[in-house]
Amino acid sequence: MNRGKIICVGLGPGDPELMSVKADRLLRNARHVAFFRKRGHPGKARQLVNGMLHAEVTEYPMEYPVTTEIPHDDPRYIAQLSDFYLGWQSRLTELTRSEDVVVLCEGDPFFYGSFMHLYVRLRQASVVLVEVLPGIPGMVGCWHATGIPVTWGDDVMSVLPATLPDAQLRQHMARSDALVIMKVGRHLGRIRGLLTELGKLDQGWLVINGTMADQQVMPLRDAPERCPYFAIVIVHGQGRRPANDM
Amino acid sequence: MNRGKIICVGLGPGDPELMSVKADRLLRNARHVAFFRKRGHPGKARQLVNGMLHAEVTEYPMEYPVTTEIPHDDPRYIAQLSDFYLGWQSRLTELTRSEDVVVLCEGDPFFYGSFMHLYVRLRQASVVLVEVLPGIPGMVGCWHATGIPVTWGDDVMSVLPATLPDAQLRQHMARSDALVIMKVGRHLGRIRGLLTELGKLDQGWLVINGTMADQQVMPLRDAPERCPYFAIVIVHGQGRRPANDM
Repeated sequence: MNRGKIICVGLGPGDPELMSVKADRLLRNARHVAFFRKRGHPGKARQLVNGMLHAEVTEYPMEYPVTTEIPHDDPRYIAQLSDFYLGWQSRLTELTRSEDVVVLCEGDPFFYGSFMHLYVRLRQASVVLVEVLPGIPGMVGCWHATGIPVTWGDDVMSVLPATLPDAQLRQHMARSDALVIMKVGRHLGRIRGLLTELGKLDQGWLVINGTMADQQVMPLRDAPERCPYFAIVIVHGQGRRPANDM
Repeated sequence: MNRGKIICVGLGPGDPELMSVKADRLLRNARHVAFFRKRGHPGKARQLVNGMLHAEVTEYPMEYPVTTEIPHDDPRYIAQLSDFYLGWQSRLTELTRSEDVVVLCEGDPFFYGSFMHLYVRLRQASVVLVEVLPGIPGMVGCWHATGIPVTWGDDVMSVLPATLPDAQLRQHMARSDALVIMKVGRHLGRIRGLLTELGKLDQGWLVINGTMADQQVMPLRDAPERCPYFAIVIVHGQGRRPANDM
């Protein structure tokens, strides 16, 4: 095993004050910091740690060779991504011969996180120790932004990627008490339509950049035509509660 | 409005290092700290902050008049709980005339949290400002305890209270990719039976006290007959991923 290890740090929903005590300490002391980003962009995870990194840090932007230019089931997409992960697997492994490397990850790394593809490869290779630090998932920051509890008592909560087909979304929307709909972006109109059909439109909220300085929260019925990819729709559960609760 | 405010602090899954930077600071400086507990017990939330509170703190244990002695839909249960919340609503409001009060809450306060019943009452009364700080939900600590990512790509994740009837559990278990089953306790055998029926037993993990010093993690098929109320069963999603991922 290498002497150093790879520590993937969950950065939480956006507000740096919501990072864990351990994440905060690791980030401020790290000498090698890696993060994913789209080519030509600063990187969302990197932006969350602005002003926190050590003066002598070396940064390793891991730039995706493709993101949405090729469909995700195209063999070329799969091949390019595999090469990309393989390349960074060996690069990060090389670095840990002598020192630790911190990998940044928005929200919680094990919840739809970008690091997981690298994580399973690194674990399989077993040359370097990999530690993953939980963070507050983005959705938690988003339901806090609404100021309303998301689940009570026996509520069922389902997390749905907006990218799923209508039939699948409809079934979960109908059967679950609380809903978190992720990656809303260009699916906003469709999500609104499905929730309207199920009589749940008035319970929906749209949250953009929850807990960040530029946070936007609005009832779904008042939402504009378009919203960013990372926007989240929340429908709160109404479960069991003692009399006199709202 | 009162000069002081009520700040409910999400304590995260158990490891004090996983509390947020803001939670840590608030807790160490707080002069009035309230927390729920069952009569005759130290209180789970209170135990999580052992050794962290200020020397001059005043503690307010809010002891439930009943917990499981009376069914939750019994009018006596509802009446006693309502009186209990009303009493603490006025006590905490009184305290905030001059100073802040911190309320402890395990995990994330808006996710099946014990503070929410008090929260909605305080908000409605509008005499005191109430702030709620997100925390890492207990389930996040539990899926980290398994060392396996819980959701990938387009996975649907459902959170199910084990207290629900079989039919409802079965439907969600069949349709969702990733599962978090909460409050497992005396329902362990039933949960195991349902997952076996759906061919998902071998994907299930049982986690007790995730991220705490006495954490226990095991494949569900190896679980003992009994487990604590707060135990969680995790079934990981297997969603889309590039070739060569496990």
